[in-house]
Parts: sequence; structure tokens; C-alpha cells
Amino acid sequence: MIAPIRWERDRLLLLDQTLLPVEERTREYSRWSEVADAIRTLVVRGAPAIGCAAAFGIALAARESLAEDTDGLLRDLEEAEKGLAATRPTAVNLFWALDRMREVAHTERALSLPALRARLLAEAQAILEEDLAGNRALGAHGASLVPEGARILTHCNAGALATAGYGTAVGVIRAAHERGRVAMVWVDETRPVMQGSRLTAWEMVKEGIPHRLISDVAAGFVMKRGEVDLVITGADRIASNGDTANKIGTYSVAVLAKHHGIPFYIAAPLETPVYNPAFDVTPAELIAGIITERGVFRFPYSFT
Amino acid sequence: MIAPIRWERDRLLLLDQTLLPVEERTREYSRWSEVADAIRTLVVRGAPAIGCAAAFGIALAARESLAEDTDGLLRDLEEAEKGLAATRPTAVNLFWALDRMREVAHTERALSLPALRARLLAEAQAILEEDLAGNRALGAHGASLVPEGARILTHCNAGALATAGYGTAVGVIRAAHERGRVAMVWVDETRPVMQGSRLTAWEMVKEGIPHRLISDVAAGFVMKRGEVDLVITGADRIASNGDTANKIGTYSVAVLAKHHGIPFYIAAPLETPVYNPAFDVTPAELIAGIITERGVFRFPYSFT
Repeated sequence: MIAPIRWERDRLLLLDQTLLPVEERTREYSRWSEVADAIRTLVVRGAPAIGCAAAFGIALAARESLAEDTDGLLRDLEEAEKGLAATRPTAVNLFWALDRMREVAHTERALSLPALRARLLAEAQAILEEDLAGNRALGAHGASLVPEGARILTHCNAGALATAGYGTAVGVIRAAHERGRVAMVWVDETRPVMQGSRLTAWEMVKEGIPHRLISDVAAGFVMKRGEVDLVITGADRIASNGDTANKIGTYSVAVLAKHHGIPFYIAAPLETPVYNPAFDVTPAELIAGIITERGVFRFPYSFT
Repeated sequence: MIAPIRWERDRLLLLDQTLLPVEERTREYSRWSEVADAIRTLVVRGAPAIGCAAAFGIALAARESLAEDTDGLLRDLEEAEKGLAATRPTAVNLFWALDRMREVAHTERALSLPALRARLLAEAQAILEEDLAGNRALGAHGASLVPEGARILTHCNAGALATAGYGTAVGVIRAAHERGRVAMVWVDETRPVMQGSRLTAWEMVKEGIPHRLISDVAAGFVMKRGEVDLVITGADRIASNGDTANKIGTYSVAVLAKHHGIPFYIAAPLETPVYNPAFDVTPAELIAGIITERGVFRFPYSFT
């Protein structure tokens, strides 16, 4: 199993995604500020994975803190929270995870300092495990939408590497592959940062899922040839009406899918649906369904 | 002026397009087989430019030939023609130019060998000059379609570098710029060979035309923001019904343009319209007009 985020020997371990697929190197972090740098420099990326890493960043901040009372610790956590929140303003899961860690810290403030530190670490681990479980549920829901012998196109990397270790869009592909339904995955290379060619293709190789890497410009071409049955991508954020912010180019793929009568699905954890007016937004009308760990939602959406 | 193809001191000079934009190096050719290699390795590319280069290749073959009579020379030319024709089977102008050179060789076979060699060189030069004149006429026709303050998106390089020195799609942009009508050119980088970022952007810099380079995946995004008034691309081939074969991704851009109600134009010399069933084909219904040196053609097309 691909494990991009682990806690071992009092340290956060991150698989360095900037080096993939050429090198598989795991980096160790014992300071929250280093975790913030790792998020900023794309060592860890993907909205859910960033949320998990940031939660461990807060756990590390609690261990680093030299405060001798709870108020001092909470002040140190607040500083770490600000630093981590500034790394990737588009990833809503980052704020969701930081909010959750802050709430635990305040709710459990009556604990001793060592107990509070342990509690925060346990919360970060829970966030990681819940993400994994949520992804598996999401994958199962999504797999039911995938026909036998499906040719699936995906953009960017909404895979194990973008999450705790299973994936959202790629999680659906993974679950469909486990059921023997995937004939071909078309992997958009996803310029300019190449998350498709570097990361999604690497995951397909690891899992033995049949795939072909294509230039982004070829997506319309393979659709026109009738070689795509459905499109699935992840989401950075989803507005309450279903409009979806995601990696640049997602919108183009959705328009092309609509033109060819190919269903276009978004796969995302339910904590992703909140409002954000900026980014590459794919209008709800272009989306056939939004696959979450609680099931598949269809137009008109109402997540409020 | 950008002059990618010149005849000087008994040699064919080609601006090496594989080195652009980092280095501007001109290579010299005195053998037809070297010209074939130059076409094959993309030192010269773009359908009209390939046609011009191949014509000079035949002129070089005539000079190289050691034949002592006309039949021997024609046999040597036939060999060169086969070698040149095998370099880029998609570029229709290549075959058009080779046909024209063969016809001259046969029509003028009564000439002395030196006179026939000179006649073939003059024909290659005529092809080059006619391409340039045709492009300027095409540019003037196309400029009439460009509104004041136009924001134009183009894919690949249908520029001076792809022709004798003015361009088809970029020729229209050049002509519109001369008339002060171009506010912005969106240059698709055009993966995987990067003709947009390497060549079209270089031409824009040379000409001082305002432009921005974008990832191919961003084309839909800028269209959705209302920042594109029209799209113009070149064509490798155009079928008699108007379906157009061009660089991979042209089709996607055409679908995106249609979705956003943005006119999508093809600019090409009239010798380009012939039938070819393979390639990335953009259906005629997605094309607002085909701009040629004889004027602008509109749907339904009939080039037969």
C-alpha cells in the first residue's frame, strides 16, 4: 500500500512527492515549521493529504512547545496554526484539519500538558485513519458507477498520494479495478506541474492498473474516438451548489466530456463542499455526480 | 523579418527550430539527403515550410546528380523525391511541392542539364516567394475578421517559422497587429513538442506583439473568464467538407471555443484543402471560417 504520511519514532514521515517517480525518498519531520515548508514546496500535496500533514504539524508544535502551562501551549499552537494555514490557501481540508485540532486543544485544556500533547497526536492519527476509511467508502460508492470494461480518464492526482493513502478519484479507480472493471485509465499529464505523469501514472504502475499517459491536449482526441466511458477527478473545494474548484484544466475536461456525452464525476470527501468563489471552477451542470464517502450526489446539489 | 528558409551561396539555409528560443543557429545544406534529415528531425517544420524545404531539396538533388543525360538526372530526382516524401507523411504541402518540382522537371526536359538545374532552383525559389505572398494575402483577409482590441488564442505554431516567413494563423495575427487591433495573444504551449512556447512565443517577442504563454489546460479557463475573442490555428490538411487535420489539441480548443460561443478560425493556404482521414480532425461545424489567400470560406465548405 502507498503510505505517503506516517507517524513513526516520534516523527512525521512524508514520502517526498517532488522526487517521484524517479526516486522514492521518505523525509522525517520533528518541527511544525518544517512541515509547513513541506506543504509549501509540494513535498506533500493534495487537499486531504495536506489536511493530515497539517494536523501532525500541530501535534509536533505541541511537542516542541517549551510552555510550562496550558495557556502558553495554546499560544504556541496558535502560532503554528497561523504558519500552517498560510501555506496553501486553496486547500480547504487544511483549514478543516486545523480547526479540528484547535477545537480538541481547547476542549481538552483541562488535561495535563503531557496528556494534552498525547491527545493532539491521537487526534492527528484519527484524522489520518478517518481519511483512509472515508476514501475506501467513497471508492466503493464510486465503483458502482463504473461499468464493466470501463475506460476512465482522470486529471491531476487525486490518488493515494493526495490523501492518507487510498485516494478519491483514484480511489474510485482502485476500487473499480479490485472489482475487475477497469480496462484502461487515461492519465492526463496535467501541465504545468505534471501531477498526472509523475504521480497518478506512478500509482497505476504500483497497482498494476492498465493505463496510458496522454498529453492534456489529447483528451478531446481520445474522447472523440469513443475511447472514454467516464471521467473522474478530485476537488479542492465544492460550492454548496455543486460548482467545483480543482486543478487548472479540470474545467476544460468537463466541457469536452459534455460535448461527447461522457459522464464527468467528481470524487471528494464530504468536508470538501464549502464555498470558494476563486479557482478553476467546473459548473455543477457539467458534473454527472459527486461521489463522497456518504454516497453519490446528483444535480441539483444542496450541501448547505 | 524572420527568414527560416533561404538560398545563399549555392546552399539551402535553415534556421534550426529545434534550438529555439534558446539559440538562433542557421544550418547549411548542400545535399538533398541532409534536407530530408532536417525535415525528419524538425529542424524545419510546419506544413508550408516543409514544402518549401523539400522543393529546395529537389533543386539540390539536381545539382548533386552526376548523371550525364536527362534520363539519368530524372532518375536521380525520383530517388530524392521518394526520400523526401517519406519524411513527414502528414504534411500535404510536402507532396504538393514535390509534385510541382517533378512536373517542372518533366515539362522542361528538353533543356540542357545546366539549364534544367537552374530551372528547378528557380522553381523552388518561386514556391518560397509565392508562399510568402500568399501568406500576406491570407493575413489581410484574416485581419478583417479581427475586431479592435482583440484577444486571440492560438495553438501550435502556424507562424513565420512554419512557412516561408510570414505565417498563416500567426500571419493573420501579424497583419491584425500591423493594423493596431491586437490587445493580447494567448499562446498555448502545445504539449508535447512545445511549438507554442518555443516558437510562437518567440515570434511574438520578435514582433513586439502583446502575448501570454499558457498551459494548454488553461485555454478553457481564460475562455470562461471572457478573455478570448477569437481562436485562430493553422492546418496540416483540410478535407473537402471543411474537416481540418492539425496538431493534437486543436480539436479540444475548437470544442471549448464552441462551448463559449467564441469563433474558431482556420488559416491555411488553399493547397492545403485535400482529403486525409487520419489525424486530430476538427469537424467543419466547429469552425467559424477558413481563411485562405483567396479569402474567407464559411460553412458549408466545398473545396472539391
